[in-house]
Amino acid sequence: MKIGIVLLSGGLDSTTTAAYAKSLGYEVHAITVHYGQKLSREIKSAKKVAKILGLKHKILDISPFKEMGWYSALTHPELFAVPKDRSVEEMMGDVPITYVPLRNTFLIVLAAAYLESEVLHRIERLGMDPEEIEARIFIAANVLDYSGYPDCRPEFYQKINELMRVATKAGSKYNVEMRVETPLIYRNKREIVELGTELEAPLEWTWSCYEGDEVPCGKCDSCLLRAKGFKEAGIRDPLLERLKRRANCEN
Amino acid sequence: MKIGIVLLSGGLDSTTTAAYAKSLGYEVHAITVHYGQKLSREIKSAKKVAKILGLKHKILDISPFKEMGWYSALTHPELFAVPKDRSVEEMMGDVPITYVPLRNTFLIVLAAAYLESEVLHRIERLGMDPEEIEARIFIAANVLDYSGYPDCRPEFYQKINELMRVATKAGSKYNVEMRVETPLIYRNKREIVELGTELEAPLEWTWSCYEGDEVPCGKCDSCLLRAKGFKEAGIRDPLLERLKRRANCEN
Repeated sequence: MKIGIVLLSGGLDSTTTAAYAKSLGYEVHAITVHYGQKLSREIKSAKKVAKILGLKHKILDISPFKEMGWYSALTHPELFAVPKDRSVEEMMGDVPITYVPLRNTFLIVLAAAYLESEVLHRIERLGMDPEEIEARIFIAANVLDYSGYPDCRPEFYQKINELMRVATKAGSKYNVEMRVETPLIYRNKREIVELGTELEAPLEWTWSCYEGDEVPCGKCDSCLLRAKGFKEAGIRDPLLERLKRRANCEN
Repeated sequence: MKIGIVLLSGGLDSTTTAAYAKSLGYEVHAITVHYGQKLSREIKSAKKVAKILGLKHKILDISPFKEMGWYSALTHPELFAVPKDRSVEEMMGDVPITYVPLRNTFLIVLAAAYLESEVLHRIERLGMDPEEIEARIFIAANVLDYSGYPDCRPEFYQKINELMRVATKAGSKYNVEMRVETPLIYRNKREIVELGTELEAPLEWTWSCYEGDEVPCGKCDSCLLRAKGFKEAGIRDPLLERLKRRANCEN
């Protein structure tokens, strides 16, 4: 029995991660979070992706977290200017202002609570043997393109996996290892594009832009990295192709 | 500059912990969470306690978490019977059904996001020297009376403190140690009652009962442990005294 929770933002990386978990034979549940304002463009993408991949999907309003992790350009753009037109080298130097305090930790803990509930239900209600359960959390963290984020580094994931064992009943009583998997952690954007394409992940429905309009801005860090990845892979971005086709239809 | 976030449920233990953090000279911010249904009796207590102690206080609706950590008698009583009239020995044996998957981890991560935001603001906006900042999270975890909960054990807090260092910008870039403090971890209920009384914590406004009515049920694990603590300390429970006075006034 393989059960996997995927943190699905609706972007290129998390969509590829979801397709990867599915390809390994996991029963995949996806979690998508938003901060309570408008449902962003990304959420629409996540819904579409989950539907195409046939995943169970939960969409969560985590506005309380926004209030807690308030020191960030992502959750409170009014406090910061989101950088534009930076080179990849400029993105690398420091912890970016788009770092949200404890965000990945928070998302993983939400996913872990969901996963542990599913695991305990299977053991204590359905009578499954704990040894037969493989429980995983999949997150699209990446150390190469996002080296500045402390919670994207391998040492963070090592620590969180150690924590999972002592923090949970599943781990401490039933010896079910609830591990966090980071299949993209050492892949660059080109390799992620290649993997997603190979797995036939629905990349044409993904959304990466920080700005979140009808059409990607093409200038924020996220758009620039995405474009670079597709260019290096020698693959046309299927999202842009789809938007072009749509524009042609409308004209 | 000493800043402390206290997880304040409004119960005896967390109120004592808040009074303790204050007595150490911390600027204390309290966080109280609820699961989105009715504002429980505990929340009213937390408000009153925070007001009396002069704490900054945030009350958060964490219903999304309830949906995630659904396998528990605390968040979903309809799935379980909350045990009554158990002896202290019976409470000890196993992980209790009131265990909520990853709850303490979740609460600590919320507190940590808030704390890190405050720390980064002080360093990056106000120009404070990171070395002058002492940042702590206070939680009323206790290993003696709650030995069954994996996230009440010292090894859990050791791991979470290791995680804090690698998970945060405050820890990894500025070397600010955001440690979780568990001042009650090895104290039994008698000692907690004694400490709270000594610190003049407003124990008469605290609430411990799992059932949450106008008057404590006196039968749930939490009521029984509280009564035992006061009895062993040779102190009358000021909450019961207050309720008695109120009842006398009303008659």
